[in-house]
Amino acid sequence: MSGMSMALVRALKDVAADIDARFDRALTLPEDPRADLFKAMRHAAIGGGKRLRPLLVSASARMFNVNAESIGRAGLALECIHVYSLIHDDLPAMDDDDMRRGKPTVHKVFDEATAILAGDSLLALAFEVLANPATHADPSVRADLVLALAAAAGPHGMAGGQMLDLEAERTTLDLPAITRLQALKTGALIGCAVEFGAILGRIPPEGRVGLRGYAHDIGLAFQIADDILDVEGDEELMGKKLRKDEAAGKETFLTLMGLERAREQARLLVDQAIEHLHDFGERADLLRDIARFTLERKN
Amino acid sequence: MSGMSMALVRALKDVAADIDARFDRALTLPEDPRADLFKAMRHAAIGGGKRLRPLLVSASARMFNVNAESIGRAGLALECIHVYSLIHDDLPAMDDDDMRRGKPTVHKVFDEATAILAGDSLLALAFEVLANPATHADPSVRADLVLALAAAAGPHGMAGGQMLDLEAERTTLDLPAITRLQALKTGALIGCAVEFGAILGRIPPEGRVGLRGYAHDIGLAFQIADDILDVEGDEELMGKKLRKDEAAGKETFLTLMGLERAREQARLLVDQAIEHLHDFGERADLLRDIARFTLERKN
Repeated sequence: MSGMSMALVRALKDVAADIDARFDRALTLPEDPRADLFKAMRHAAIGGGKRLRPLLVSASARMFNVNAESIGRAGLALECIHVYSLIHDDLPAMDDDDMRRGKPTVHKVFDEATAILAGDSLLALAFEVLANPATHADPSVRADLVLALAAAAGPHGMAGGQMLDLEAERTTLDLPAITRLQALKTGALIGCAVEFGAILGRIPPEGRVGLRGYAHDIGLAFQIADDILDVEGDEELMGKKLRKDEAAGKETFLTLMGLERAREQARLLVDQAIEHLHDFGERADLLRDIARFTLERKN
Repeated sequence: MSGMSMALVRALKDVAADIDARFDRALTLPEDPRADLFKAMRHAAIGGGKRLRPLLVSASARMFNVNAESIGRAGLALECIHVYSLIHDDLPAMDDDDMRRGKPTVHKVFDEATAILAGDSLLALAFEVLANPATHADPSVRADLVLALAAAAGPHGMAGGQMLDLEAERTTLDLPAITRLQALKTGALIGCAVEFGAILGRIPPEGRVGLRGYAHDIGLAFQIADDILDVEGDEELMGKKLRKDEAAGKETFLTLMGLERAREQARLLVDQAIEHLHDFGERADLLRDIARFTLERKN
């Protein structure tokens, strides 16, 4: 936790506890043979991860005095999408991973069919959470949240990025292609998190330029840091298998730029992200802390 | 087509052409390595199926003078969910089917990873279509459509039904259990189609009782007919492998009731479904035709 502000340490802890409690309530075990489906969702969803996306919703929405329930539900929906993507990405037909967040992956504990259905279920659940009147009294806010998340998750967003990633194993990508792949695969959902803050805060699209620039830059910085952690990180701390890209001969920011240039580029992106926030004053301090955290994290 | 009204023949043809055109526009091939993802979605989505769910949206919404664009987009969203479910259900880890709608299944033409992502993408796309302002000017209508579809698709609806179906291979179900399984697996989405008509027609929930009863009854009748077609049907006409339930030793309405009682039960359900429509007069004639069609179809 070295270098992290007290405010960030507390926010990470609070958001993690809130999201766990929300998943627990949303995924009550039914008393019928669907129980395994819910157990599989709970296994993947509860008690793991940094909850970076809900934290970004919270940090951006709080600048506009949004109430905690709207923030919590919007963050839960985003995390539903993130967790679904991890379950499906780990499947044997995709990245074929046995460990995730320090635990066996869903298809290892249950089976492939249950893992596919658990991912599908979380995907649908995300939109049920957002469209529910409890998320916001104004239906136009709820519809805007749904539209932003569906676009970020679908073939023009995260799912499209995952497809580019699959193709990357068969071809050699250059820096612009890797940047585009990551802008879709991880950037779209990170951008959506900050967009959620603006939608809940009723900031019109023309007022979102700074926040969008911030999200774009930390999304890339986060991914570069991930590539560095994949090479330098500790498998135990990361809770998953590392150095798979190298073994697969895949290009990453690191292979294309080298370690020193990659580090420098990530630092520049974080500075640039913080620069995008200059109109928000002190209100944006937590977003600034998060930007710095993208480089300092150990998992 | 024997026994089908001219109005139904025309409606089936019109809806099929409209949905194909909408999928064609929604799934324009991108000029990058995501092209295969879009080809996979197009392979599954375009040029196949009865389009029963969009037809039900149309037949119910037209009773309330809803405009064609809203009807078309709501039907497209439902069909996105239906097609996603077929792609994932056909996967080797699920039902492991090679043929669907007379064509090789998506994972056969492409690969499993692409099939998983194509299903995920269609799931997200459904909500993007609904939440788009082009679907309805009133955001509360859009939010209600999203909520209804997400609930019907998720673990308390279709995905939960598919989980019960997977469990059914390991246990012996009785008639109430099979009825519940099918009410979720196919009934939830059929119910959602008719609910879409009521939402678009701005019918308050207390005015939807008849339509919900109708949907419940034709959903079950449709499934009983499906079980009968699975035993008596022609694989060429059906475009998929039949008699798999028997081979797997799975209970169905047919094994539990016998052919004659199953036929009689389906006929009773259709009569009952039509009875639920008595308040709507001539406006509901197409819904009545659809109810009869559930028994007469050959595929």
